[in-house]
Amino acid sequence: MTKRIAILGSTGSIGCNALEVIEHLGPPYRVAALSGHRQADKLLAQVRRHKPAAVALSDGAIPPAVESELAGEGVQVYHGAAGLIDLVQRDDIDIVVAAIVGAAGLPAVLAAVQARKQLALANKESLVMAGSLLVAEARRAGVHILPVDSEHSAIFQAMRTGRRAEVARVVLTASGGPFRGAHRRDLANVTVADAMNHPTWRMGTKTTIDSATMFNKALEVIEACWLFDLPPEMVEVVVHPESVVHSMVEFVDGSVMAQLSPPDMRTPIQYAITYPERAAGISRRMSFDERFSLNFEAPDADTFPALRLAYEAIRAGGTMGAVLNAANEAAVTAFVAGNVGFLEISRLVELTMSLHCVQAAPSLDDLLEADRWARRTVEEQVGGRAETAGVVDGQN
Amino acid sequence: MTKRIAILGSTGSIGCNALEVIEHLGPPYRVAALSGHRQADKLLAQVRRHKPAAVALSDGAIPPAVESELAGEGVQVYHGAAGLIDLVQRDDIDIVVAAIVGAAGLPAVLAAVQARKQLALANKESLVMAGSLLVAEARRAGVHILPVDSEHSAIFQAMRTGRRAEVARVVLTASGGPFRGAHRRDLANVTVADAMNHPTWRMGTKTTIDSATMFNKALEVIEACWLFDLPPEMVEVVVHPESVVHSMVEFVDGSVMAQLSPPDMRTPIQYAITYPERAAGISRRMSFDERFSLNFEAPDADTFPALRLAYEAIRAGGTMGAVLNAANEAAVTAFVAGNVGFLEISRLVELTMSLHCVQAAPSLDDLLEADRWARRTVEEQVGGRAETAGVVDGQN
Repeated sequence: MTKRIAILGSTGSIGCNALEVIEHLGPPYRVAALSGHRQADKLLAQVRRHKPAAVALSDGAIPPAVESELAGEGVQVYHGAAGLIDLVQRDDIDIVVAAIVGAAGLPAVLAAVQARKQLALANKESLVMAGSLLVAEARRAGVHILPVDSEHSAIFQAMRTGRRAEVARVVLTASGGPFRGAHRRDLANVTVADAMNHPTWRMGTKTTIDSATMFNKALEVIEACWLFDLPPEMVEVVVHPESVVHSMVEFVDGSVMAQLSPPDMRTPIQYAITYPERAAGISRRMSFDERFSLNFEAPDADTFPALRLAYEAIRAGGTMGAVLNAANEAAVTAFVAGNVGFLEISRLVELTMSLHCVQAAPSLDDLLEADRWARRTVEEQVGGRAETAGVVDGQN
Repeated sequence: MTKRIAILGSTGSIGCNALEVIEHLGPPYRVAALSGHRQADKLLAQVRRHKPAAVALSDGAIPPAVESELAGEGVQVYHGAAGLIDLVQRDDIDIVVAAIVGAAGLPAVLAAVQARKQLALANKESLVMAGSLLVAEARRAGVHILPVDSEHSAIFQAMRTGRRAEVARVVLTASGGPFRGAHRRDLANVTVADAMNHPTWRMGTKTTIDSATMFNKALEVIEACWLFDLPPEMVEVVVHPESVVHSMVEFVDGSVMAQLSPPDMRTPIQYAITYPERAAGISRRMSFDERFSLNFEAPDADTFPALRLAYEAIRAGGTMGAVLNAANEAAVTAFVAGNVGFLEISRLVELTMSLHCVQAAPSLDDLLEADRWARRTVEEQVGGRAETAGVVDGQN
């Protein structure tokens, strides 16, 4: 049976890896639809190579010339957020790889689940923002949410060796990012380039900065709680700099099951697409011919407050996940733009969370409103600080 | 439903651990029968504590006074090899934990499988000697063979995360034993006490010496081939001195699934008893609060020829597994008695294998005969050397 796949966010890091995997797998796997945001040339090249039936474009981001070229390729073109939602519901799509980064991915992810598509979820923000909604919809639709994050893929695989009630805890591994071992005082003046220098993984900007702050792991803790229906006290984080053990599940009998592979996103992407089967992989294999070590250590809670904020957000519930996520996105944007320092990212998230009045059992609109509120709050803070900074500069 | 358990070899290391596990599990698990060899007092204490309905004793090894005490406890007593076979077939036994060390365990293991008992197999020699027979009988009887070795338990668990056809290879971990990193020339004069000084596991004499020579791992390679129906080229050995990763399975997609736990035999013993369920464990849990490392390196083929001999034995097939196993048992006995040096163990096994004419598709009698032949061959060699050594001594 043909497996027709839509890739949302196909020009991003996960999207490009997903295309490589599908090309490697060959029939019955086939690219049926793509969606892109800003990189018009890349999207056009992908369309020419993979011949999807449909493409969704972000509003105003793609030049009209590209659009007419797409039409010339016989591709049906969809526009904007509403178009993306129409695209995922097409009858000729079986699997949706949701690889849009950030909160923008949520409405299409919800639509894909409601349309009963198999969901390979890389957009962890969907679960962080709207875990309660998404999990409830998936249950209603009888749809599996297959994680694309290497950590959650590892947990998903390890879970197969026991029953849900036999799980004692989940241990998420974290590379520790480029600033592992640093003291908080060392990080005040780090640059975007410093933060982008990840030791083991090649990823997009947002995710790489999130790895440097450990907000990536914070989001993954929340994601794990929703995906595997776990209370936060059953999710632990351990720093493992080699990024070979992608995560672990401990069962009540003391057995810990772990998934290992060289750090390469194509491995978990492929598993999310081929599940419940496995197919020959495209990545480098593990070698046991050369001596190697796998190291583990507790995360540094002082230097990286993100993890503590994640546990606070889960315990607060309701709209707080959306607020943590949106505040982080806005703070990362401000950091990348050079408007705030590295340590401000977690300070801004913490401040925004402390200002938020949690709304329990939120609707999608409530979550989107909480998201907008958090971004606005961060932007006001950043603006205020920039003004203050301007005054200070003027005095020099 | 009550799970009534017979423990063959209850006074040995695995047997004692199995009793602890059953006591810890509590109902519905219950000790129904025990068998012991030489340690009469220990066996009697076990009977008083666990109240089995039946006990099998080795011929002549247990004093008559103990026997009458057993009768006084209302226990039905069985005698000798034939008695052990009768015991495992009792209707009031559901699970047989086969923890007799060495070839002596084979006939009772075969009888347990034929009587359709769930088999928790610690007696790896049964599979090494008679894998073809035992696996065929288990298939015919529709019986699961549940491995008790920590390595094979790890593989069994990891196998649950994919289909058999999706397995690329199995990676058995080895602690490397007390002589890891040593050169062959360093080992000529090591004593029994040196060889018994295992860095991570507390085990019986035979298994500990086998760990020092790496014949333990050699036997496990053969065991893995039979248990999981693998060609030898799909089984690899890696040295992992911490004995925390108990073994791994690599799937075709490049995912490696591993089972980890602190080195404690009670964990795999319990899994073999409670499978397909897991129950709360008795052992120390893994901790991720303190920094730790897991190290891996290739085994040293020069210092430890045992692995090469295992692959040769599997490829030769037929009676060769029985010959490797029996020659090793006889050579270890000679080493422990002080009659040969440590390096002679593998030399004697290799020599005996080279003298053996393989018989394909052997019966149980053929295997027992090959076993006796191999022991005799080793003993003759040892005797011959002792005589030569005597002459040399006489000349001094």
